[in-house]
Amino acid sequence: MEIKKLSLAELQRPSVESFSSMDKMPVVVVLDNVRSALNVGSFFRTCDAFALEKLVLAGITATPPNREINKTAIGSTESVKWEYFNTTLEAVLKYKNQGYKIIGIEQTTQSVPLDAYTIQDNKIVLIFGNEVNGLDEYLLPYLDVCLEIPQYGTKHSLNVAVCGGIVLWEFAKKLNNSSKI
Amino acid sequence: MEIKKLSLAELQRPSVESFSSMDKMPVVVVLDNVRSALNVGSFFRTCDAFALEKLVLAGITATPPNREINKTAIGSTESVKWEYFNTTLEAVLKYKNQGYKIIGIEQTTQSVPLDAYTIQDNKIVLIFGNEVNGLDEYLLPYLDVCLEIPQYGTKHSLNVAVCGGIVLWEFAKKLNNSSKI
Repeated sequence: MEIKKLSLAELQRPSVESFSSMDKMPVVVVLDNVRSALNVGSFFRTCDAFALEKLVLAGITATPPNREINKTAIGSTESVKWEYFNTTLEAVLKYKNQGYKIIGIEQTTQSVPLDAYTIQDNKIVLIFGNEVNGLDEYLLPYLDVCLEIPQYGTKHSLNVAVCGGIVLWEFAKKLNNSSKI
Repeated sequence: MEIKKLSLAELQRPSVESFSSMDKMPVVVVLDNVRSALNVGSFFRTCDAFALEKLVLAGITATPPNREINKTAIGSTESVKWEYFNTTLEAVLKYKNQGYKIIGIEQTTQSVPLDAYTIQDNKIVLIFGNEVNGLDEYLLPYLDVCLEIPQYGTKHSLNVAVCGGIVLWEFAKKLNNSSKI
């Protein structure tokens, strides 16, 4: 087939200024004690791509400015709004009080497979946990829903930034059909 | 809600031996000159999670054993079958001759949005390109289909390992409804 790659100009990406005033996907991503700043940077880049409302960095999660974050965020720390909380619980309580549905991504006794979940809310918090320990146990009672990505391999789970990409893609697809993003 | 995290034992993941004899998703992933061994390791982990047929490493793409691959593959180089080719074209031609549909992941004049694509084949090659340059131009005429992930941010694209996770998840979901994985 006759085919040509699209340049950055042809892709017509928004500037940081016009991104800032764009309608966003009504989703706040919370990183609960994510250890690797490379993973944090990768979340910035994904939150930029899917035009998310905000990225919350909590606990030991690194914050900009940070060299390792920059390596994988490649500048998206300028476009994505972010906020830091000392504990993930503070962030969860703040958004719960504002009427956000609190959704944890974790393999639990109550998890719903990601592809089986129907989005019924238009204000959503998605929490992703530490690379080794996952979501902090003490957060589990505060969740309204727990989602997991069905998987079939030998390992416990996916990389957290890859997992984030999959979940945010699924929400972007579904919310895109019901509201403007 | 009453909720408890699942341990690795409770998740009942297959051993490397039983994974080896499991039915796999009929998808071969080809990495075309991927520069970062961390990204390669991440693809190993995702290919394990979704039980893919094979991971092809081509050109400058690093191969196991490799310390950086191990950091992100965390052992999945043992479960996922892989093969090295000097050039991506050799791999593409081999699988094309075996009746595989050749699908490139790239933003081009002919790209189909990932969520709009209907899978009609049961032998598929998915090619992911270099972090900076994307798919090599010379490969484009060999593609049967080109797919892209719709995105709305300021940056050119997603991280390649995150992009891989999203595409493989979408194929796993769709193929899971039509064949055994």
